Amino acid sequence: MSTLTEAPKPAGLLLLAFQVKGKHCLVIGGGNVALSRVEHLIRANAKITVITGGGNVCQEMKDYAANGKIHKLVEREFKLTDLTMYENVNKFSDVDQISDAASFDLIKSLVYNEIFAIVCCCIDNYALLEKIYYQCKYLRLPVNIADKPPLCDFYFGLMYNQENLQIMVLTNGKLPRLSRIVKDNIAKEFDGIDLNKAVENLGLIRLRLRNLIPIDDDDVLNIDTRMNWIKTLTDFFTLKQWLELELIPPSSAPPYDNRHKYIDNIIKYFPDYPPSDFEEFKLVVICD
Amino acid sequence: MSTLTEAPKPAGLLLLAFQVKGKHCLVIGGGNVALSRVEHLIRANAKITVITGGGNVCQEMKDYAANGKIHKLVEREFKLTDLTMYENVNKFSDVDQISDAASFDLIKSLVYNEIFAIVCCCIDNYALLEKIYYQCKYLRLPVNIADKPPLCDFYFGLMYNQENLQIMVLTNGKLPRLSRIVKDNIAKEFDGIDLNKAVENLGLIRLRLRNLIPIDDDDVLNIDTRMNWIKTLTDFFTLKQWLELELIPPSSAPPYDNRHKYIDNIIKYFPDYPPSDFEEFKLVVICD
Repeated sequence: MSTLTEAPKPAGLLLLAFQVKGKHCLVIGGGNVALSRVEHLIRANAKITVITGGGNVCQEMKDYAANGKIHKLVEREFKLTDLTMYENVNKFSDVDQISDAASFDLIKSLVYNEIFAIVCCCIDNYALLEKIYYQCKYLRLPVNIADKPPLCDFYFGLMYNQENLQIMVLTNGKLPRLSRIVKDNIAKEFDGIDLNKAVENLGLIRLRLRNLIPIDDDDVLNIDTRMNWIKTLTDFFTLKQWLELELIPPSSAPPYDNRHKYIDNIIKYFPDYPPSDFEEFKLVVICD
Repeated sequence: MSTLTEAPKPAGLLLLAFQVKGKHCLVIGGGNVALSRVEHLIRANAKITVITGGGNVCQEMKDYAANGKIHKLVEREFKLTDLTMYENVNKFSDVDQISDAASFDLIKSLVYNEIFAIVCCCIDNYALLEKIYYQCKYLRLPVNIADKPPLCDFYFGLMYNQENLQIMVLTNGKLPRLSRIVKDNIAKEFDGIDLNKAVENLGLIRLRLRNLIPIDDDDVLNIDTRMNWIKTLTDFFTLKQWLELELIPPSSAPPYDNRHKYIDNIIKYFPDYPPSDFEEFKLVVICD
């Protein structure tokens, strides 16, 4: 038997979170697909240029331009030279060595003010979009050509966005409806949840545990035991269930004599565990 | 009051799924962070080059190289010229016009055989990693410098991977533990779920609805009603609950006289809905 580390199974794509805040991004097209790309880019605070390509431009796109969400909306046919419309190519002619502060500043200006960080093409003209793809790759710009997977460096997934949480769902082509179902499931799990409060509830238990079961900082074994206990306990319930728990007694008021009563009902089980059934857990914890 | 379209709220980053299958990707470093980058890239079927940077190389990295998961493992200090190690820069000297098949082929070869699609740097030497970042941007290579957010084009989130499903979870820095909790919640929701089967169960209802409530293809209004009915019904329950339902009677055998009995118990409510309480739903559906 081999003792080699088992490699992760291939799952398809490399999911990444791009930082495009304040960087130029280009969308080619004026229809609904272009609009959805623009909305992704608005969420990411990009500096968006839209070149509509001469077809119909949807009203929402015009609205976004009108209220300043789109940096530049150009209603005309697309030209390949648009891909470098903000670039001042002469600046680099004298740069031999990329190693001093001056050259660093030039490159920073290039990244933030001149190069398109992302190009999204959402037009139907096949001859043109093929040229756009190859010109983008010649210029080394990451590009997505809508509906043409072989001409894409990257794809978009379905997004779930909350104030402090972004989730992207991606399914392979075999199950086209799955992404939406999974996303709806995630929405059902997290919509309306005050994530800060759920995390706080878990933090209350963690903090009280550290106070009640103090451990010398060098006692790595017992620090691990305490950490694993909290981790296992966290896994007992969903975020929604953790949020639902009222871990501070409603009668709790200054000087907070009974503030920790319920939490102590949990911690008294340590290093064993309270019931993992939620209803049973509530019965033995939320009691005076 | 303004009638302008309301723009999406800024949520932070642009989440994308990169196609790096068969493309060169570079990881600089040999420690645990480099290892985690390599594992992301293995999942995405990338052609991985690791240049260890002269420090310790973890055993798992050596194992991945030994079993062929890493294309090239180079155990030495990193040089800036490594960023173009597969590039044959002369090829392009004669290309003026990026518009014919020959130039397209050259560019395709560049994308798939020569350029690093992604660079991940996981070393501590600040002077060096700053140079790596600027050299990458000069070469227009997307780069992540670990632990140096301002020197990153992109970040990694926490991943949940299933056979047909990839989910990335990203939280802002204010709630560092949140990503793991959310990811564990998602795992709890989807682990062990045969997604194909859950989707199939919903497909059975959809198909039967189309057969029982046939609608002329031109009758857009009623097609919408039927579609919205299925969508609303889908939202009644979680994937886990949909999977749990046995919508084909256990006694169903050729010639399948009773095969649709339970599904018809659902559809008879159309255009109204069966109970949205799962237990009640089961009682009125799974009955003979």
